[in-house]
Amino acid sequence: PVSRSSVVSMKSSSIRIGLLGCGNVGAALVQLLTEQHESVKRRTGLDLSIEAIAVKDLDKDRSIPLPDEVFTTDSASIVNNPEIDLIIEVMGNIEPARELILQALNLGKSVVTANKELLAAHGAELYSAAENSGVDLLFEAAVAGGIPIVRPLRESLAGEPITQIRGIINGTTNFILSRMSQDGVSFNEALKEAQELGFAELDSTYDVEGYDAGAKVAIIATLAFGVEVTSQDVQHEGISKITVEDIKFANRLGYCIKLLAAAEQKVNENGNSEVGARVYPALVPLSHPLAAVNGSFNAVFVEGDAVGELMFYGPGAGGRPTASAVFGDVIDAAGNLQRSHGALIGALDKPNMISPENLESPFYLNLKVEDQPGVLAQVAEVFGNHGVSIQSMEQEGMGSEARLIFITHSSREKDLFSTINSLNSLSVVSSVDSVLRVIGD
Amino acid sequence: PVSRSSVVSMKSSSIRIGLLGCGNVGAALVQLLTEQHESVKRRTGLDLSIEAIAVKDLDKDRSIPLPDEVFTTDSASIVNNPEIDLIIEVMGNIEPARELILQALNLGKSVVTANKELLAAHGAELYSAAENSGVDLLFEAAVAGGIPIVRPLRESLAGEPITQIRGIINGTTNFILSRMSQDGVSFNEALKEAQELGFAELDSTYDVEGYDAGAKVAIIATLAFGVEVTSQDVQHEGISKITVEDIKFANRLGYCIKLLAAAEQKVNENGNSEVGARVYPALVPLSHPLAAVNGSFNAVFVEGDAVGELMFYGPGAGGRPTASAVFGDVIDAAGNLQRSHGALIGALDKPNMISPENLESPFYLNLKVEDQPGVLAQVAEVFGNHGVSIQSMEQEGMGSEARLIFITHSSREKDLFSTINSLNSLSVVSSVDSVLRVIGD
Repeated sequence: PVSRSSVVSMKSSSIRIGLLGCGNVGAALVQLLTEQHESVKRRTGLDLSIEAIAVKDLDKDRSIPLPDEVFTTDSASIVNNPEIDLIIEVMGNIEPARELILQALNLGKSVVTANKELLAAHGAELYSAAENSGVDLLFEAAVAGGIPIVRPLRESLAGEPITQIRGIINGTTNFILSRMSQDGVSFNEALKEAQELGFAELDSTYDVEGYDAGAKVAIIATLAFGVEVTSQDVQHEGISKITVEDIKFANRLGYCIKLLAAAEQKVNENGNSEVGARVYPALVPLSHPLAAVNGSFNAVFVEGDAVGELMFYGPGAGGRPTASAVFGDVIDAAGNLQRSHGALIGALDKPNMISPENLESPFYLNLKVEDQPGVLAQVAEVFGNHGVSIQSMEQEGMGSEARLIFITHSSREKDLFSTINSLNSLSVVSSVDSVLRVIGD
Repeated sequence: PVSRSSVVSMKSSSIRIGLLGCGNVGAALVQLLTEQHESVKRRTGLDLSIEAIAVKDLDKDRSIPLPDEVFTTDSASIVNNPEIDLIIEVMGNIEPARELILQALNLGKSVVTANKELLAAHGAELYSAAENSGVDLLFEAAVAGGIPIVRPLRESLAGEPITQIRGIINGTTNFILSRMSQDGVSFNEALKEAQELGFAELDSTYDVEGYDAGAKVAIIATLAFGVEVTSQDVQHEGISKITVEDIKFANRLGYCIKLLAAAEQKVNENGNSEVGARVYPALVPLSHPLAAVNGSFNAVFVEGDAVGELMFYGPGAGGRPTASAVFGDVIDAAGNLQRSHGALIGALDKPNMISPENLESPFYLNLKVEDQPGVLAQVAEVFGNHGVSIQSMEQEGMGSEARLIFITHSSREKDLFSTINSLNSLSVVSSVDSVLRVIGD
């Protein structure tokens, strides 16, 4: 095993990467790495380059901006290449990914993976191989796509007595339940639609019966409670039996129905700590933050004795979001190879601050006006003269208490403030009482 | 400067901590550290001990389980003590915190701080001192209390092209706006209430006019965009002019009003990158995830080109939540002192899995029943016989299509399933069609 201190003496900031697999996530990662290469180099000093990519089919067109020589079908040759410092595994499935990662770790290379199935089955073996070699094994993308949850659990919450975690961590089933709830379509119709949109595989069992969420919650429980929980330990219950009627009853009672992946820890009557990990559909109160997680979005809700309630929300799947999570891990692992300590803030330039008057946003305005014919026309003309267009208007009250409420389309502050100046000089406008920015949907 | 590799040879897993300040956060931290000492030791091998605590007043009763000799009024003696490896600063204000932290970093000690005001004013100087000494300066608690946001921005999103961040990161103003919105009380009444509940200081300017949120967004913008943004660069607009009428109009138009801390980055017409950082009240669409962040909760909403939309939600203040964030940093920094690489998964025991039949939760049941007198009494008796108590019941339909919908109080699965067995053998129950778990508010 290579110790970190010998790597430190390397001194070079050039990190050579081998990529195993080049599907959706792999291709998005190569693109992101190319786009962000200069920015990462400026901020961290890391010069990241993809030296080799292992694929199944060399002839497939991937529209990737790298020369043909980079591609190979021989994954092992990449892992064994002494020129390569860091391995990214996005090929999926258990073998040969497991053997390749073990070999890379044993050779002292750091590894970043997005492979939930592998970690949920053989995590302890891999974590221990990384520890023995003194290298990183990072896997932010394996649990909830683009949502940072692994790093917060491993590090930010390392000292937190976590009691319970509940996640909506399967986008396919959340899309189906959201469609059933919002539009009253049946489970089968919603599933078919998800398949047509590419959110669900043709064989939907892995998603619909909770196996995908089960693999993810096994990893979550392992990180949260520091014990080895595997896919085998997780009980599954899927959503195929949920009816539109159930959802309607639940709604009337103040709940929605979500497929939850739950991990909990409690002390049993003998004073021993016990861990639970399950996937099941459940009624969630409409006032609970998880109730607002709709469509293909994911969220992980964490409860701890000290911290209280936390929620992490975002895209749980998709090539670019998942690649973003992999990329964060790559920069972290590469930084650890280059230096002897954790992530730094990096070089800080002085910023160019945006001139406030060039900022744009929609605005809300509340005007007190004279209630007489032609007022609205005069006011609207002022907006038009300054290039501010009106999205909606409401009139309220009568006589000297009449009010006009406007929401504008996105406008430059400069234009909005000159509009207000002109409005203030109109005799029919008594006062401009409120001006607030509006954020978009 | 002490390099990490020389620290590695120390081999000891005992980390001696000096604590500067012992108010709400400091006292909660000592308690958490004491409670979790064994669990952290088992999982990480770190034996964390608080060797010295600097306070203003030695006579104040702090109900802290440490001997009197630990306390001192001489902060500098703690920083200069060669026996101490790691400094935690929770004293607040700029001086002497700045000088003490710089001295600690220059002596090669790692530092964890919760001091937003200091970092927003002098961050670049401190980050660079840490980098020069090759030690950690961690500050998760400085931005949003218990919500992990610093580590995700520094590490998970290190490669993400972030375009915009919008945060609700001041609990006092969010409490006031929530009260005004939900209960129609005026700004002044809501502020008075916040002061009585201890959510707001008697001098509320720092919160209400957006200075607190401004310091936090300066740190956020620095991390997100890799440029030095200070409190001075942030424009402020507070909420003291917001009226209940504004909130009502906004509601009718489909919006709520929130005090937002916003950071954005865009490319100007000359092709240069520009950064904006502002605090202002804004209309937020009720369908936006930020609209559901009420009371003293905080949230940070991040938008990036690759990852899309992320939200981090939780308690933005409070002794225990903030101490939880400090504690995560302490374990991270202590791990880096002990070893030469980042956080590990730690030792993994095999878990004791909770026996599913001992799990408890409320349940939803949907029963098809004969519509005849006495059915409900027979059904209710079955629940009672198995110790399952009913929280609510609804009857639906007539004749052979009659349904009873129950939500139970929290019950053991064992009892619930034996209830279902008995219900199935009742002649008046045609079928038990749905059984779903319910999660609490």
